[in-house]
Amino acid sequence: MASTLIVGSVAFDTLHIAGTCHSKVLGGAATYASLAAAHFAPVQLVGVVGRDFPDSATQMLRARGIDLAGLEVADGETFHWEGRYSEDLSSRETLRTDLNVFADFKPKIPKAFQKAEFVMLGNIDPTLQMDVLDQMSKPSFVLADTMNLWIDIRHAELIKLCSRIDMLVLNDEEARQLTDQKNLVRAARALRELGPKYVIIKKGEHGALLFHGNDVFALPALPLENVVDPTGAGDTFAGALIGCLARANDVSGPSMRRAIVYGSVLASFCVEGISLQRLHEASPADVNARFEQFRKLTNF
Amino acid sequence: MASTLIVGSVAFDTLHIAGTCHSKVLGGAATYASLAAAHFAPVQLVGVVGRDFPDSATQMLRARGIDLAGLEVADGETFHWEGRYSEDLSSRETLRTDLNVFADFKPKIPKAFQKAEFVMLGNIDPTLQMDVLDQMSKPSFVLADTMNLWIDIRHAELIKLCSRIDMLVLNDEEARQLTDQKNLVRAARALRELGPKYVIIKKGEHGALLFHGNDVFALPALPLENVVDPTGAGDTFAGALIGCLARANDVSGPSMRRAIVYGSVLASFCVEGISLQRLHEASPADVNARFEQFRKLTNF
Repeated sequence: MASTLIVGSVAFDTLHIAGTCHSKVLGGAATYASLAAAHFAPVQLVGVVGRDFPDSATQMLRARGIDLAGLEVADGETFHWEGRYSEDLSSRETLRTDLNVFADFKPKIPKAFQKAEFVMLGNIDPTLQMDVLDQMSKPSFVLADTMNLWIDIRHAELIKLCSRIDMLVLNDEEARQLTDQKNLVRAARALRELGPKYVIIKKGEHGALLFHGNDVFALPALPLENVVDPTGAGDTFAGALIGCLARANDVSGPSMRRAIVYGSVLASFCVEGISLQRLHEASPADVNARFEQFRKLTNF
Repeated sequence: MASTLIVGSVAFDTLHIAGTCHSKVLGGAATYASLAAAHFAPVQLVGVVGRDFPDSATQMLRARGIDLAGLEVADGETFHWEGRYSEDLSSRETLRTDLNVFADFKPKIPKAFQKAEFVMLGNIDPTLQMDVLDQMSKPSFVLADTMNLWIDIRHAELIKLCSRIDMLVLNDEEARQLTDQKNLVRAARALRELGPKYVIIKKGEHGALLFHGNDVFALPALPLENVVDPTGAGDTFAGALIGCLARANDVSGPSMRRAIVYGSVLASFCVEGISLQRLHEASPADVNARFEQFRKLTNF
């Protein structure tokens, strides 16, 4: 089992879903990803919170085997995002973004974390993602997530980052936007030409595609009846994926495919509860049962 | 191997795709479905054409083992549809619909066809689909396709049809429209409550879902680099599916799942050429090779 470093936001989310307001629940890409990865391997989290971040949250994360030596506590308040989901949960609008201490986030990797072998660069400014890589000594596998904002305002930096990572994870619209290619096979090829040997294109309720060399893996999402809160599903997917690769300490074909299935398993739990609730509650038996459900779903 | 009856439109399509106009190429739901089904089993086609329908087309269909005893030749011209696809082929607009002889289409099932065991009711008025069933003696499996038009203007008839069929095939938007359910799991349950034991929800480039009892099968589409003409892909899928079930003369779990994969295989060929070109050219070896490609694509 190899060590896993996860860098990204730790936040409070205020979620307006189906007429109910869930005020300042725990959120953030690094939080979702770490809790998901911790199902498979020990996790080292790097992020920043404010003085208002509650002990109960740090205790919950520590209890899951997440090392918080890289969680800086800065003067000020924790990053806070507020958003409202559409009735069918297929879209959301941002009502408010208070960057707070996250505005000045400069990831500092503790000495003990610098030798981590599996690294997930959560969705933050690609300049900061590269700062993290500068502080690491030879990780064996680096996964980076990104978003439309960085494609717009940090395009050159994102392209540069791509030459330094093993895997890029992004959604279909972002893949099209970054490559100017409508066709996803061509978009994935264009992305791999930028550097990453592995490209994963997430398609939400339609599943995910992995492109690697001439190999393509397509996994449908589990059709779910009770989707409660889609927040953090993508971060959960990537976190479980990197944790699973770290547990296997192997990125070859079968390990990679299994990691993608486990990513989808954890993402399916994630969306079934508000905030991190279901992700936190799911037992190893629950996780394995749902992995088998994916086999039944896709087997022919 | 059981006999397969396919009822639906036979048409000329004028397709505006990527700046090129393909004038009056062969099209129609029954044509696509029959050519796809004929890869697996002998097909009996029921439809109507005008006096302008060329011998070359009937010869081509007969050469594939399609029995045209049910292809009525009526006074007038063959159904003609003209449409323009968007640049990325994700949508299309109808420029012109000349129903011609199709306006008075009343499917007459030849005596020799009435004992067919596998029946595909292509996308026509549900009243006509029921007329077909009235003429059949106990088919063992009936599949019906439909479209948004009939959901709008023949809602009651479509609901009635549902109580008489084994499988309903429709796309995700149609499933939502017919059931008023945004969630596809719930939509599929609502559809099964109308009668069909099997519901297939097609999602285009995202693949297809089969719902049957508590069983769900999800198959991604093959990611394709060169999509040329999406016309008829859904009809091709359903035609290959019914042909494959007829060949196996079995609709149990594994046979059903294999039939859905073969449906997707033929649909993947369909979209790679204009009109029926690739569907016509694909050899048994091509078909089997692509079936194995689906295994590689989805296996974990």
